[in-house]
Amino acid sequence: MKLDGVPSRTIWLEPDGWSVGIIDQTLLPHKLVRPALKTVEDAARAIKTMQVRGAPLIGVAAAYGVALAMRADASDASLDHAIAFLGEQRPTAVNLRWALEDLRATLGPLAPSVRAASAYARAAALADDDIETCRKIGVNGLALIQEIARRKGGRPVNVLTHCNAGWLACVDWGTATSPIYHAHDAGIPVHVWVDETRPRNQGAALTAFELLQHGVAHSLIADNAGGHFMQHGDVDLVIVGTDRVTANGDVANKIGTYLKALAAHDTGVPFYVALPYSTIDWRTGKGCDIPIEERSADEVLSVQGRLPDGSVGSVLISAEGTHARNPAFDVTPARLVTGFITERGICAASGEGLLSLYPEKTSAAA
Amino acid sequence: MKLDGVPSRTIWLEPDGWSVGIIDQTLLPHKLVRPALKTVEDAARAIKTMQVRGAPLIGVAAAYGVALAMRADASDASLDHAIAFLGEQRPTAVNLRWALEDLRATLGPLAPSVRAASAYARAAALADDDIETCRKIGVNGLALIQEIARRKGGRPVNVLTHCNAGWLACVDWGTATSPIYHAHDAGIPVHVWVDETRPRNQGAALTAFELLQHGVAHSLIADNAGGHFMQHGDVDLVIVGTDRVTANGDVANKIGTYLKALAAHDTGVPFYVALPYSTIDWRTGKGCDIPIEERSADEVLSVQGRLPDGSVGSVLISAEGTHARNPAFDVTPARLVTGFITERGICAASGEGLLSLYPEKTSAAA
Repeated sequence: MKLDGVPSRTIWLEPDGWSVGIIDQTLLPHKLVRPALKTVEDAARAIKTMQVRGAPLIGVAAAYGVALAMRADASDASLDHAIAFLGEQRPTAVNLRWALEDLRATLGPLAPSVRAASAYARAAALADDDIETCRKIGVNGLALIQEIARRKGGRPVNVLTHCNAGWLACVDWGTATSPIYHAHDAGIPVHVWVDETRPRNQGAALTAFELLQHGVAHSLIADNAGGHFMQHGDVDLVIVGTDRVTANGDVANKIGTYLKALAAHDTGVPFYVALPYSTIDWRTGKGCDIPIEERSADEVLSVQGRLPDGSVGSVLISAEGTHARNPAFDVTPARLVTGFITERGICAASGEGLLSLYPEKTSAAA
Repeated sequence: MKLDGVPSRTIWLEPDGWSVGIIDQTLLPHKLVRPALKTVEDAARAIKTMQVRGAPLIGVAAAYGVALAMRADASDASLDHAIAFLGEQRPTAVNLRWALEDLRATLGPLAPSVRAASAYARAAALADDDIETCRKIGVNGLALIQEIARRKGGRPVNVLTHCNAGWLACVDWGTATSPIYHAHDAGIPVHVWVDETRPRNQGAALTAFELLQHGVAHSLIADNAGGHFMQHGDVDLVIVGTDRVTANGDVANKIGTYLKALAAHDTGVPFYVALPYSTIDWRTGKGCDIPIEERSADEVLSVQGRLPDGSVGSVLISAEGTHARNPAFDVTPARLVTGFITERGICAASGEGLLSLYPEKTSAAA
């Protein structure tokens, strides 16, 4: 999508042909800084500190991290270390492990001398694959928005989303936002309710910024407000992303997603989850088995933004000595999800639904 | 309750015998400033800007505002103006209108020469009455906590609350917090999950501060996190306050309350609303008829706290030009509420439940 009017990706190979460019998403929307990752440690730090974040993007970033490791040392020990090291940076998103396993399977059988080139090629292929996957998610989700637009006879379609499952979370297009961008580009009037998504405010900092850059109408709201707007008929559709979907259709996503799913269910608003195939964890049976990352209490005790002097900094929102807890994800039970939007189509949020789109997984799930 | 170890109220008569002292709650927990209100305009501004907030406290503050108006000009026109002017500062809380109608009924028949003294006496009586009402709410709610404590055999009782229905929202004790303070003072181990309560962060700034000052164990959490903790059995009980309960038991309270009620209902956690009789709006049949205050978008676009230099200020959390919406309250349907805790006891969240405690209202509601 466009950044300052220029079509952009979230991760790319620098002109030197080996270092990996990213957008430092911890500084958005206040500063646009594009650091270059040069070592596997750089890549791990970028994932850990959420300079890159979003399930699909951290998968691609981890693949490039393996490439950087192979460039420095292509031994079996280095490969094992890179995969283990990168994999432990974020525990919840399954794409991270999915990408690393892909790299292990690709590189493991190869001679060390060709591993670096192969890793770079594989990382680039994963990035291209993510773009195409997200594009297809958009095309499939577009049908839902078109149907609502027809029913509303030209009035804007109001879509609520939580966190950032936008192009900044992927390589391009996004997952949850891809249907929205496709609808907007097709001339359908769309308005997006953007949950700010405390504690890290990815909605306020990233999703609102994305939509503003692309010219899509939107309103930022407190995480508390979505239920109220659903009660008043101001939300036609919820679309969120996910960090992991288990074999039965349970959905791990940014903390607070469960609350919006409950409100959608209570008010009869369709609640869809947009995801690429790589986010499905066929080996985990149900959502309660997903490890939930607990992040630093500082994220709750303070809020980052632009200070009055124009710099990016934080304010402390509670008294010194206040204790805080910070689970980063919650699990929305499949029963609250209207359907999944994937690159292969739309299906029910259930094991049967998933297998109807991915029949080749039938034996794995059995 | 105690502030810096000293038993305090949230509103009082200054030593001069006529100006009205308050705690500027917009600066808590970072600065403890106690301005004096000297005119009805001061009182209105304090209510509008939320230097005083919380349904019971703004009722008492409005009563003192009428007293200040009567001191300056005790004519009928001045009384009418003060009541209309103060009443329009916050549209949702019913206590504001309740207190003003009380003052009109008290002062209207009196000669102007005695109105000021009578208004001060009535405001003081409303303050004392609020303290006693909140104390009784605490005693009645304590029974719920004691019962859970018995069942848990000494393990802490985990209570979740939203916004600040604490002593800072009242004159002393609080509504939702009163059972918690009573339990703590009775030696029952209690731990409070404190929703930060965006956009104004009354949970982070006020409730956590209150509990810290009184020594009650607590954890500040993002508004998004409560559902997750309920799913994991970490919440035994939810107690919130309310700005208005309609005759059928629907509950207007701080935006986001509805989402927590949904999660409590979904996970089988008891969800109680603590309120004084003055919060019941017998004349409004159901929640959808309650006017919902929409506040400034700036509250969503920025977050106030302590800046790195120690001053109190704000950070901007989204890009310049981002549009935001800011409804301040939502309505939780009675069907999601386990019960009401009032100064007269505990009842079901329904018209019948309310009338069982307030049988004298039977004809009014009929």
